[in-house]
Amino acid sequence: MTRLFVTFEGGDGVGKSTQVRLLAAWLEERGETVVSTREPGGTDVGLEVRELVLHHRGDISPRAEALLYAADRAHHIATLVRPALERGEVVIQDRYIDSSVAYQGAGRVLDSAEIRSLSLWATENLVPDVTILLDLDERLARERLTSDAKVFDRLENEKSEFHERVRSGFLALASAEPERFQVLNAEASVEELAASIRARIEPLLS
Amino acid sequence: MTRLFVTFEGGDGVGKSTQVRLLAAWLEERGETVVSTREPGGTDVGLEVRELVLHHRGDISPRAEALLYAADRAHHIATLVRPALERGEVVIQDRYIDSSVAYQGAGRVLDSAEIRSLSLWATENLVPDVTILLDLDERLARERLTSDAKVFDRLENEKSEFHERVRSGFLALASAEPERFQVLNAEASVEELAASIRARIEPLLS
Repeated sequence: MTRLFVTFEGGDGVGKSTQVRLLAAWLEERGETVVSTREPGGTDVGLEVRELVLHHRGDISPRAEALLYAADRAHHIATLVRPALERGEVVIQDRYIDSSVAYQGAGRVLDSAEIRSLSLWATENLVPDVTILLDLDERLARERLTSDAKVFDRLENEKSEFHERVRSGFLALASAEPERFQVLNAEASVEELAASIRARIEPLLS
Repeated sequence: MTRLFVTFEGGDGVGKSTQVRLLAAWLEERGETVVSTREPGGTDVGLEVRELVLHHRGDISPRAEALLYAADRAHHIATLVRPALERGEVVIQDRYIDSSVAYQGAGRVLDSAEIRSLSLWATENLVPDVTILLDLDERLARERLTSDAKVFDRLENEKSEFHERVRSGFLALASAEPERFQVLNAEASVEELAASIRARIEPLLS
């Protein structure tokens, strides 16, 4: 028996980590035990993979990149997420399988079905109960990232056509599984978004 | 058009790297351009993966381990091995897909067919022309490794039952593909083994 597995998806700069934090705080106030985590890099092994995949100097071949994300995911799910769900806790996760399909499938132009089955093999078919997709125009997302004045990683540095393909990839996934996905326009304010997310999660807790 | 892709397989301590070196030297004397390489760790990305997979403190989940080897392999084949073969060079490689099937499949008791298809996806179906399997009794291999007085890595540290399963896994692969495999008893002397290997390779060069 598992409690609830919620994932957040969307491009860089759409506000996922803020919403993960707000949802976790709200759930904890309601007495839930919450694990907030992310991919890549939710475990010790994952941090090493994350460092390699996001900050390696020089190219990484597209299939190697996809396999590194799947390796991070396999270890993360086996050692952290699945045990928490089995203890009856709520897991809120920043990025999961849909990110791989959108980035390595639509973005890198690998076969999306193959990318998906790679991750399903990695996780022994663990699918989220709910996936919140924060959707934002690529130009607005880019402005938010730039205003943060942070150093871009390997994927953030990709051209805007890449990020457009990623955004379309996410929207296609959401259309294919409307029951699992909630798509929200991330131009809304932080508090409006948080309220929409709570409204979607609340019925699943009783 | 590719020249020749030769892989060496077998447990730790059977003498693969010595035979790779001798075969490469003999081929170079005959005027061939030879690339000697290995997995994991035949590229810059691969060295980082190798460090993680062989020397990480703490467990790595079996599927994550299999995916890390596949990531190393994808990058290695795409950036080093396939370009060399396409230039008409001979590639001699210490460990390849059969090692993953034997170690992660037979050794870790994952599904061997799944491990194999993971690697075929990683490499876009690159299969060696010839695979030399150096077969040695697990106890003798262990004695050779111990006498080297080296520090064992994560896999070398596994129990002898693990290494027995790996050895059986290699032999099963060789029986299934007798045309590709040459199985040699690694109790033979270094020079006897090298001569057997040359006899197998020579007809393929003309």
